[in-house]
Amino acid sequence: MRILVVGANGTIGTAVVNELKGDAEVIKASRSNSDIKVDITSTDSIKRMFKEIGEIDALVSTTGAAHFGPFEELTPELNSIAVNSKLLGQINLVLLGLPYIRDNGSITLTTGILMDDPIVGGASSAMANGGVRAFVKSAAIELPRGIRINSVSPNVLEESMDHYGPFFQGFESVPAKRVALAFRKSILGAQTGQSYYVY
Amino acid sequence: MRILVVGANGTIGTAVVNELKGDAEVIKASRSNSDIKVDITSTDSIKRMFKEIGEIDALVSTTGAAHFGPFEELTPELNSIAVNSKLLGQINLVLLGLPYIRDNGSITLTTGILMDDPIVGGASSAMANGGVRAFVKSAAIELPRGIRINSVSPNVLEESMDHYGPFFQGFESVPAKRVALAFRKSILGAQTGQSYYVY
Repeated sequence: MRILVVGANGTIGTAVVNELKGDAEVIKASRSNSDIKVDITSTDSIKRMFKEIGEIDALVSTTGAAHFGPFEELTPELNSIAVNSKLLGQINLVLLGLPYIRDNGSITLTTGILMDDPIVGGASSAMANGGVRAFVKSAAIELPRGIRINSVSPNVLEESMDHYGPFFQGFESVPAKRVALAFRKSILGAQTGQSYYVY
Repeated sequence: MRILVVGANGTIGTAVVNELKGDAEVIKASRSNSDIKVDITSTDSIKRMFKEIGEIDALVSTTGAAHFGPFEELTPELNSIAVNSKLLGQINLVLLGLPYIRDNGSITLTTGILMDDPIVGGASSAMANGGVRAFVKSAAIELPRGIRINSVSPNVLEESMDHYGPFFQGFESVPAKRVALAFRKSILGAQTGQSYYVY
């Protein structure tokens, strides 16, 4: 089984790679320092990546940027960071990668708790999360050749609390290792159209 | 009370105007044949509209285009129709219109049942709906000056069943008049951060 993990250098990406490397050939993709480079905000870069790596059994995305900041300072331009990365970056991985996914393969994208449990400064990220969750639910009923699709919505990570803790008051952080289990369930299980909440 | 209804010529827009015209001054905006013209896919057009109409008590959007078609034919380019119209068109109305909304005013956007109950061909629309719903929930905790924000998620409309019925097998269509009640609740009630489901 060949698994492509986009965002493999991030905290969740690293945990997912560790979770799966005993069961599969894992191809690590990220903006730098990986098996293959990709910029998910560029459709050309996504196309090049898939052309280079060829067929896979599982597409995993654990990446996506978004602007965080006070709502009154959110502009269409700042909001476009999340639109082009966390929302369309992940969705374009699906649209452009689908022909490279083998029969009965799977796709797993990442959303996040802010769509359900908002914090100050998180509206743009929440938008991207909500868009990805709904896209996944709808795409699942149409994917061809037995291909499945799910999304994973992590709480704030234990590993990120040093940096982000002050913004997530009262949230019960979760270890990336626990989030990685949801990816294992999506990839090696049989469900489709699900949003796995790691809250 | 001054209410701006963007998309006032649509089936839901017309019903909202009829629902509210006895209680407020309603300014109708749409791409043509209205009190004021606006193209929500253009931030310049949105800015011009607000500059021309000035202060309002309620911003209502009942509009937003999306591409419908088989998932395997969905490209990043076709998906951008929903991104630029139903998703960002509505969100940019909020980001650019906020300074024009009076203290204790309200904002009401439109999503749709496809984010919860998908149909073939609806993934791009579902994405936009889910993004708007999550954005609204998050924005609500940060809006200044007592301004509230909600979204309304209609089922397929009775009025649209001649055209769209074949795509919505088994859906219980609702009259636009019933959808308009949810807008009344959002505008004249006191709740915020809600998604009103007219299913």
